[in-house]
Amino acid sequence: MKELQERILREGQILGNGILKVDSFVNHQVDAALMDLCGREFARRFAHLGATKVLTAEISGIAPALTTALHLGLPVVYARKTKPITMPDQVYLTLAPSHTKGRMVELIISPEYLANHERVLIIDDFLASGATILGLVRLAEAAGATIVGIGALIEKTFEGGRDALKHLNLPVESLASITSLDDNKITFAD
Amino acid sequence: MKELQERILREGQILGNGILKVDSFVNHQVDAALMDLCGREFARRFAHLGATKVLTAEISGIAPALTTALHLGLPVVYARKTKPITMPDQVYLTLAPSHTKGRMVELIISPEYLANHERVLIIDDFLASGATILGLVRLAEAAGATIVGIGALIEKTFEGGRDALKHLNLPVESLASITSLDDNKITFAD
Repeated sequence: MKELQERILREGQILGNGILKVDSFVNHQVDAALMDLCGREFARRFAHLGATKVLTAEISGIAPALTTALHLGLPVVYARKTKPITMPDQVYLTLAPSHTKGRMVELIISPEYLANHERVLIIDDFLASGATILGLVRLAEAAGATIVGIGALIEKTFEGGRDALKHLNLPVESLASITSLDDNKITFAD
Repeated sequence: MKELQERILREGQILGNGILKVDSFVNHQVDAALMDLCGREFARRFAHLGATKVLTAEISGIAPALTTALHLGLPVVYARKTKPITMPDQVYLTLAPSHTKGRMVELIISPEYLANHERVLIIDDFLASGATILGLVRLAEAAGATIVGIGALIEKTFEGGRDALKHLNLPVESLASITSLDDNKITFAD
């Protein structure tokens, strides 16, 4: 998506170790209008899949998942990383490595909001190694739900996430696909 | 706001200790359309204040803050509770007690995204004791920014948050104001 790519080029900062800082419009400050555009684009690409729920992981997935859900007329569920006291004792829980935290994090969903008849569209901010998204896939599978598609704002193709998701045989869409951060330069697939 | 009150009556669960569980449309599953309505209403109530940025705290504040920002045409900044590696070493940090976590949590904002010329509108999911919102106030003050208003989806008047904010002399708006959860019954102010 042109608007997202341009913003990444203008404000993205390469921090080394494959980390692209987009804190000025995605991960700390959020450009609401840009997120709305991205949500609209996800909704357009995934409209035909008959999703009944958008699934994401707190924290950075919430904004794009919410705008996607808004344009599809669906609710969002975001996996929690710590179990709040409002959650029942029996939950779906999986572990996923966090790239930016350098450790494993828990992803937790209450069975109250993910049932076996759901058709789940997974939306996240980044598709890097695919580890977080695979965690969400495991949670949806544990609930017996059907996953219908996967979308990420920004894909880093050089971290192999798309290959890691290949066995799922699902449509995987990213709005900005980065093939390299080498030589302090952001290179897009197109 | 009628739509929010009706939803709270229909799906809110009183867990005791003053805790109202609204995980089916605010805190775990999010009703995107309802959040959009709430954001539109906040935008209407605060439009005249000349805000330049919406400020909230992760995690549950993000959805209403994002839709408010969308309708006001502003960016959102959400205070982080753990410092990600993308954040600079020098940050604004304060501590606030978390009602649902039963411990103090950190609220952290990067100086990159909160400057002294900003006019800040604070939006959160709950106004209970006011502790989280006062934490956001301290962060905005530390940055030298001007706070112009405070909005919460759900106010629990019996926890005294509005009084705790009184000295700020700011407009404080809530979209559903709950005066009591006694006798397993949700009572609204109007």
